Amino acid sequence: MVVTVSDIPRLLAELTLEEKASLLSGSDFWHTQAVDRLGIPAVMLTDGPHGLRKQAGATDHLGLNDSVPATCFPSAAGLGSTWDPDLLRRVGQALGAETLANDVAVLLGPGINMKRSPLCGRNFEYVAEDPHLAGELAAPLVEGIQSQGVGTSLKHFAANNQETDRMRISAEVDERTLREIYLPAFEKVVTRAQPWTVMCSYNRINGTYASQDPWLLTDVLRSEWGFEGLVVSDWGAVDDRVAGVAAGLDLEMPASDGINDARVVEAVRSGDLAEADLDRAVARVLHLVARSQAARAEPGTTDHEANHALAREAATRAAVLLKNDDGALPLERGSLPATTVVIGEMARTPRYQGAGSSQVNPTRLVSALDALREQGLDVPFAPGYVLAEASTAVGQERSDVDLRREAVELATGRTAVLFLGLPAIDESEGYDRAHLDLPASHIALLADVAAVADRTIVLLSNGSAVAVADWQEHADAILELWLGGQAGGPAAVDLLLGDAAPSGRLAESIPERLADVPAQLNFPGENGVVRYGEGIFIGYRGLDATGAAVSYPFGHGLTYTTFAYADLAVDGGPVTEATGADDVVVRVRAVVTNTGGRAGAAVPQLYVGRPDSLLARAPRELRGFARLELAPGESRPVEFTLTRRDLSHWDTVTRGWSVEPGALEVSVGASSRDLPLRAVLPLEAPARRAPLTGYSTIGEWVADPEAGPALIGAMGEFGAMFGPDSPDASMAAFLTSMPVVKVPLMGMSRALTVETLEDLIARYGTR
Amino acid sequence: MVVTVSDIPRLLAELTLEEKASLLSGSDFWHTQAVDRLGIPAVMLTDGPHGLRKQAGATDHLGLNDSVPATCFPSAAGLGSTWDPDLLRRVGQALGAETLANDVAVLLGPGINMKRSPLCGRNFEYVAEDPHLAGELAAPLVEGIQSQGVGTSLKHFAANNQETDRMRISAEVDERTLREIYLPAFEKVVTRAQPWTVMCSYNRINGTYASQDPWLLTDVLRSEWGFEGLVVSDWGAVDDRVAGVAAGLDLEMPASDGINDARVVEAVRSGDLAEADLDRAVARVLHLVARSQAARAEPGTTDHEANHALAREAATRAAVLLKNDDGALPLERGSLPATTVVIGEMARTPRYQGAGSSQVNPTRLVSALDALREQGLDVPFAPGYVLAEASTAVGQERSDVDLRREAVELATGRTAVLFLGLPAIDESEGYDRAHLDLPASHIALLADVAAVADRTIVLLSNGSAVAVADWQEHADAILELWLGGQAGGPAAVDLLLGDAAPSGRLAESIPERLADVPAQLNFPGENGVVRYGEGIFIGYRGLDATGAAVSYPFGHGLTYTTFAYADLAVDGGPVTEATGADDVVVRVRAVVTNTGGRAGAAVPQLYVGRPDSLLARAPRELRGFARLELAPGESRPVEFTLTRRDLSHWDTVTRGWSVEPGALEVSVGASSRDLPLRAVLPLEAPARRAPLTGYSTIGEWVADPEAGPALIGAMGEFGAMFGPDSPDASMAAFLTSMPVVKVPLMGMSRALTVETLEDLIARYGTR
Repeated sequence: MVVTVSDIPRLLAELTLEEKASLLSGSDFWHTQAVDRLGIPAVMLTDGPHGLRKQAGATDHLGLNDSVPATCFPSAAGLGSTWDPDLLRRVGQALGAETLANDVAVLLGPGINMKRSPLCGRNFEYVAEDPHLAGELAAPLVEGIQSQGVGTSLKHFAANNQETDRMRISAEVDERTLREIYLPAFEKVVTRAQPWTVMCSYNRINGTYASQDPWLLTDVLRSEWGFEGLVVSDWGAVDDRVAGVAAGLDLEMPASDGINDARVVEAVRSGDLAEADLDRAVARVLHLVARSQAARAEPGTTDHEANHALAREAATRAAVLLKNDDGALPLERGSLPATTVVIGEMARTPRYQGAGSSQVNPTRLVSALDALREQGLDVPFAPGYVLAEASTAVGQERSDVDLRREAVELATGRTAVLFLGLPAIDESEGYDRAHLDLPASHIALLADVAAVADRTIVLLSNGSAVAVADWQEHADAILELWLGGQAGGPAAVDLLLGDAAPSGRLAESIPERLADVPAQLNFPGENGVVRYGEGIFIGYRGLDATGAAVSYPFGHGLTYTTFAYADLAVDGGPVTEATGADDVVVRVRAVVTNTGGRAGAAVPQLYVGRPDSLLARAPRELRGFARLELAPGESRPVEFTLTRRDLSHWDTVTRGWSVEPGALEVSVGASSRDLPLRAVLPLEAPARRAPLTGYSTIGEWVADPEAGPALIGAMGEFGAMFGPDSPDASMAAFLTSMPVVKVPLMGMSRALTVETLEDLIARYGTR
Repeated sequence: MVVTVSDIPRLLAELTLEEKASLLSGSDFWHTQAVDRLGIPAVMLTDGPHGLRKQAGATDHLGLNDSVPATCFPSAAGLGSTWDPDLLRRVGQALGAETLANDVAVLLGPGINMKRSPLCGRNFEYVAEDPHLAGELAAPLVEGIQSQGVGTSLKHFAANNQETDRMRISAEVDERTLREIYLPAFEKVVTRAQPWTVMCSYNRINGTYASQDPWLLTDVLRSEWGFEGLVVSDWGAVDDRVAGVAAGLDLEMPASDGINDARVVEAVRSGDLAEADLDRAVARVLHLVARSQAARAEPGTTDHEANHALAREAATRAAVLLKNDDGALPLERGSLPATTVVIGEMARTPRYQGAGSSQVNPTRLVSALDALREQGLDVPFAPGYVLAEASTAVGQERSDVDLRREAVELATGRTAVLFLGLPAIDESEGYDRAHLDLPASHIALLADVAAVADRTIVLLSNGSAVAVADWQEHADAILELWLGGQAGGPAAVDLLLGDAAPSGRLAESIPERLADVPAQLNFPGENGVVRYGEGIFIGYRGLDATGAAVSYPFGHGLTYTTFAYADLAVDGGPVTEATGADDVVVRVRAVVTNTGGRAGAAVPQLYVGRPDSLLARAPRELRGFARLELAPGESRPVEFTLTRRDLSHWDTVTRGWSVEPGALEVSVGASSRDLPLRAVLPLEAPARRAPLTGYSTIGEWVADPEAGPALIGAMGEFGAMFGPDSPDASMAAFLTSMPVVKVPLMGMSRALTVETLEDLIARYGTR
């Protein structure tokens, strides 16, 4: 059975109403519906996003049983930390090839929801706390996957930023916040990479389920962004299927036991649903079937070795060197077995991916301890703590105290390399984290080991930020590995030994205290509602706005060399009415130099701020980044461009993107809080001219070069107060925010009557 | 012309439609409309709230010209800091007597809006950042005023927490926050003291102007709280007059030039407004006229000397001793002229009230310098800085630098008493503050003086919190005087010399940094909207929730002795369905002892917290306080009671007050952050039982002792996962937040069909 795009009109005409409705939901947990009569095959969609989770044999009712082996790449938190679009593209190509080889049409990912709170249980599946970074990384990942002839599913659209009550919660978010924070990554990926599918989220947004929100699924996604693919529900996200079809939810997954299909048929029959809406959704399902068949003629094979090597490279690039006092890292290979010990069960039993629907059955799994031994480095090892979920690990029967004592003995006078991290139970799809802390047994182990060790190196395995403020003093170096996938162990060893230099940068802030994150006052909500009261102030935007201390800022990451930033040049402008959204308005140039003794990758970052804005603004927002591999002593220029859109905010009055005129602060540097290069450009842009009405304030009228003098004149003696030679400036300040219509109504100026005001409005209101 | 209450039905029958409409707005800026034909007089309403501002002679178009002399009491920020209901009642009696003697019917106050942000320009007119404190103080003030036969106007109702764009801004506030933070002080005063009038505010609330909000003005104010008086607009707050009459806005002030009267007439004629709505409003105006006439038969006279003495007592009690290292205060009277200097123009030219409609023309005004000299204490004085608004002050022509130099010379080796504070231009009705800082000239003066002085005492004159973190190290003592009214000078001297002991306590937190106040992320809003994104977390509730450092916490205040808190006893409960809202549920007892060598007033404070709450909760909330005058060595018991309402939160599901069962943390002490006595009481209360539906989660079903086992049984093998012997607890955790209806729809359990689930709901859903 082969369906091509050109068959769609004919098929639409031949399908019965019942057949059309049936095509709008799954046939089982993972497949679309086939219509054998017309040669329409089923296609398979399976979980991602950092590897293929195709269930082996019959799919069980949970959809979570063992899956076919597939390369387990680092989870999104790690991929996001690479700040490396090219790597993401290559990972995407590998994922796509494995997907195709397994006869799967769509890999369900990537997930690009913002990390609104570090407690979101699914943050390990998300890329960043910043929409620019998430979009710039997810677009090449999607392109890479789709380059192999399979589809992606950009998820979870939208405002799905917590697991608590995720299937009912209403995210109450104002539109500016949605447009500037929660939607732009989706917008970037849709407009640039056209994912085959977008997956709507479980939650409601301002009271409406995403699965039946016409504003979200049609107005924004299709009309504004030009999305050409299919919208699929998150598994079980459908509330009112008929409303969903009308709103733009094309495909319900999984099967709903025929119940919703029947409702769709009934709604079309009763006239509650236009058949055109049904046909539109069916056409999109058929289009997905057609395009997925094109590549399946040559499914190819998977080179598992090459993909393992790529997973290792990705894990190496994902790791973020948070701290490295006195060049504690890299270790000297030669002295390794004699002077160094490895401590921590996670060195032997890696924590390499998160729990839930993204869980991959890896083709191989190499621990750090294995990787060391494969290199002939037979370093002494002590587990140090019990890993609750490592049921087969030696030592589980012994207590943490015993294990700690043993580890301390081993570490005395040596360099201790500690593998610490979060237990799997702490972060999972389906529920949120309760705190930011490492297990007490890990922290106690670190303190005891550091007290006797010569040097202490901490490697962290966790899918989302952990607090380090209380224990980091004990560590000479901290290397954050995230959840590194199946080759995370060898990657860690590459970095420890200096065979690779760390090049990851934080895609999420590490706050000193959870309470410093503004969103926490409204997380995770109550009684089915979570108010995004912090507005745009998530991640570094919030921490910078309040000036809270952070342990490590967004964008931070060390390596084995150092960099200098110089020669900032900023030029451009003005913005005019003719400037297109994607037109470059400002160019920013700088030069980065490797000032150390080793090769390494700099990641210069561009932030912009609007210090004189009339709006609530983050002090700075990421608008560009680059990755420069630099040899010792090498200098390279970097150039960033800022389009009109890059300089825009969402204007709640015009409900569109707008550029404020005024100072534009441009900063370039190594993190959101390490910005050695700064410049301020006066940005000219057309000021939004609101119509002057009776409800415009005296101040707004007076600010207008023509209407102001006219009003002042019309208000007689009272008006003089607002002129340049005000006899009473403090009284003028007191009254300036009064709507002009109040002046005649309250009898403040007998000269200005309601009628003369109406004349003024007619003359000056909407020029 | 005399109108009595019994005349009202007859007058309603005799008034023409036009006459009735005319009664619903002012005749000029300050008077209601008379109807001579029927003997209905006009009555006068004039500004308060801390003194009478009755304009002399003809009222000008601004309504802000010179007024008749009246006693200027401390502004509300000062009165709030007394924590002294009895004093507020006596101040009220004096205000009422002056009002009556001046033939004024209604004094426009008090203002009890919450201090959401320390930047609100009108905070000096508001009592507190806590609704319990504001309500407990404003109720006796209203009772005191009204005991004299004149009315009050409780304002500004509601959510008028900023001056920026106050006539248009929409305060976007969720109902729980309104009910728990912004409305309770109004509720307490209305239910306890029945103010003759309530003044609606300028702003919108969730999009609707307060002046035409039927939910606010009728449902809440009258139906729920039983308000029996009249609702008057803030001056110029009317938007749609016809909608306002229908919503419950009885009286528009000031006159609207007949325009709105004509609209009301037209609306009644066209049927857009029910004549019954008009009559109801007219009856309330007539009722106000009638009750205001009762006392006017004997207007009495004002004892200005007695009222000045009361103003002095009030200012003394308002002052808060923030800091007093090594007993720097009180000063020794004997050594005063020789060893002490007074520095700061504000000692000579007092800043004693705020700008705007509350500005009183005082009967006397005594500066601190005058007060010292009246006592024969001819202390050397240097102005130290230029007070911009003190146009007649000597020294204005000299620069701050010169003045500072002179002051430093004078202070060398002496005790320096510095009068610092905010310039009048910094805090006013009509606009908000831009920052929390003292003028740079004041801070520079302090630093220079402290470097050479023997001791440095700072007295502050300001109407709202100023930041002290950057300079308080220079001061041995800090005494916050607020805006102390006309006798603030003598009061300051009484405290300096120990003739009176400080007894004020902070009614507003003094944060270390403005950015630590959660509301600042959403202050003052933009484009006509301010989102109260911080929810309930204003004042100490927000600072305690984030754990931000504060310079001085809510409730703090030292005196010249010390107190010990002991013997906490907490008992009570349970809450049952039969417990009434005002029934006492919990009793809290403690003993306070004066452990120092002087008499003084302790202000023990009771806070409650709900550490195990399922809701967003402040760590603690004020629910009681007392003022105990204690002789040295004296102990006295204090008892607090907590009613059902005191223990309740606003439940957004039932839209009513509700008590959560669980731990009740009770703390007693000297401030929100100095709580030596703590106890936890397990509070029994009926758990709200939500009906179980298909959208109730698996977890919610399983938590029910009867429905849970039934559901688990009905779900077969899948259900066993959620039972006590779950074979896969982590999978259960993953799925527990799934609505039950998804189980059959997604085919997770073939045993549970949509039909069997419907049976379960019918059986267990709403028992």
